[in-house]
Amino acid sequence: MNPTDADQDLDVAVSVVDITDPADPRVADFRDLSSVDRRPDVAVRADGGVGRGLVIAEGVFVTQRMIASRFTPHAFFGVNRRMHELAVDLANPSLAGVPFYRASAEVMAETIGFHLNRGVLAAAHRPAESTIAEVLDGARTVVVLEGVNDHENIGSIFRNAAGLGVDAVIFGAGCADPLYRRCVRVSMGHALLVPFAKSADWPGDLDLLRAHGFTTVAMTPGAGSVQLAEAVGAAKVAFLVGAEGPGLTEATMQRCDVRARIPMTRGTDSLNVATAAAVAFYERISRG
Amino acid sequence: MNPTDADQDLDVAVSVVDITDPADPRVADFRDLSSVDRRPDVAVRADGGVGRGLVIAEGVFVTQRMIASRFTPHAFFGVNRRMHELAVDLANPSLAGVPFYRASAEVMAETIGFHLNRGVLAAAHRPAESTIAEVLDGARTVVVLEGVNDHENIGSIFRNAAGLGVDAVIFGAGCADPLYRRCVRVSMGHALLVPFAKSADWPGDLDLLRAHGFTTVAMTPGAGSVQLAEAVGAAKVAFLVGAEGPGLTEATMQRCDVRARIPMTRGTDSLNVATAAAVAFYERISRG
Repeated sequence: MNPTDADQDLDVAVSVVDITDPADPRVADFRDLSSVDRRPDVAVRADGGVGRGLVIAEGVFVTQRMIASRFTPHAFFGVNRRMHELAVDLANPSLAGVPFYRASAEVMAETIGFHLNRGVLAAAHRPAESTIAEVLDGARTVVVLEGVNDHENIGSIFRNAAGLGVDAVIFGAGCADPLYRRCVRVSMGHALLVPFAKSADWPGDLDLLRAHGFTTVAMTPGAGSVQLAEAVGAAKVAFLVGAEGPGLTEATMQRCDVRARIPMTRGTDSLNVATAAAVAFYERISRG
Repeated sequence: MNPTDADQDLDVAVSVVDITDPADPRVADFRDLSSVDRRPDVAVRADGGVGRGLVIAEGVFVTQRMIASRFTPHAFFGVNRRMHELAVDLANPSLAGVPFYRASAEVMAETIGFHLNRGVLAAAHRPAESTIAEVLDGARTVVVLEGVNDHENIGSIFRNAAGLGVDAVIFGAGCADPLYRRCVRVSMGHALLVPFAKSADWPGDLDLLRAHGFTTVAMTPGAGSVQLAEAVGAAKVAFLVGAEGPGLTEATMQRCDVRARIPMTRGTDSLNVATAAAVAFYERISRG
């Protein structure tokens, strides 16, 4: 197929720019994506250096979700086939003049540092973060995370929140970056759509939840807990979940209104944290 | 520390054998574990060759579960530190004379083909598989999978089944190997403990479920479905779940007694299949 012929069929708002050199400075936002020390997306890098403060969408589906979100892509990087799959989305007038850096799979792999099966990336600058008060406004059900430092678990929690009627995600102490590429991918892009906020005063910010009328429900299999079904009926409910293994800290649980458990069998393994959260969300949407 | 001194403190039933050559034939059961073509554990390899028909446990925790399961390890391969962590388990008289191949992390990495953070492996031969009739005997709640070919999803389903009171897992057409290393690891070892059986006649074997008095509940967000809460009350319930994306086939759903849905918000994304299964298991254990 002659690329020129193919491009004649393509009616997009973005500006298509062909990239043949993996070292091309125009694709610096997509370089060394899996490097702990040099990742461009973080605001502050692992080595203490300043990053670019980006969020990166990966794959056709998540890129579509980013275009529909408050995160406005300022650059795309992908193979020709994915650009054509995204043609309708890339025709959005809001993307007028945004570069689509088109490259072979080989050039992409050299630039980003690994072979990307999904074939397309989009980069957006991170906007100012919402405050807890902002995301609580109008919310009826929220989830609050403490010590959840696994990107896949956070991504799954966003996906489960979106699917099961949870209005916002709040991050307490010790949580990983909700806008890291892997988290956004596992969330199916919902990390870009479900409102979230980070606590600057933990666990003191739990008082904000109470001030907004939320009943705080600590999810724990431990002593003093009631069955989950007995804990979801308040007008506004905030579910608190902790990392697998340690769970919520005692200091945090002591500030909560109620402790709730999921009925469990066969030994002491708790469910995965995202699964436990999904069960709580389900109980709330079904009977809250 | 002098290894000889350390060994004097170690009172185990296994026979400790030091391995210094990654090519040592005694550790052939652990060689090239991530190789699609040469993996030793499968019964029939991807290239059509005959494998060793093994199940491999990975890490201290899953190795402990394997020792407690119907899968009897015939060899261990690990670093000295992990052997000491497993000392109590390795003192089990049933393991008398079973070799513990002790090696450095470097020799292990060369043998198995990647660096194993968990530091210890155990290998068992696969016993004869249970029949569907065997695993249904005495069961009250089971889950039936169709087209679930992702090892991590299968592992999560085993873990959720163990945690939420499901008695057995049945594999219909198109499912991945439930005894693959990654599946066993993600299941937290529950793939070795929760009874399972594979269908040889799919979907015809659904008649076996009915013959055993099970009400078959197809999990689907599609038309004609009732709320999950209305579908969990029978004396014996079998939940059927399909792969993410396609879901259950229509032919399978037509053979089921009822179709049930999870209340969902925000668009058409279904939950991850293991999460949807967990929600169904929770509804059953809470109110079934």
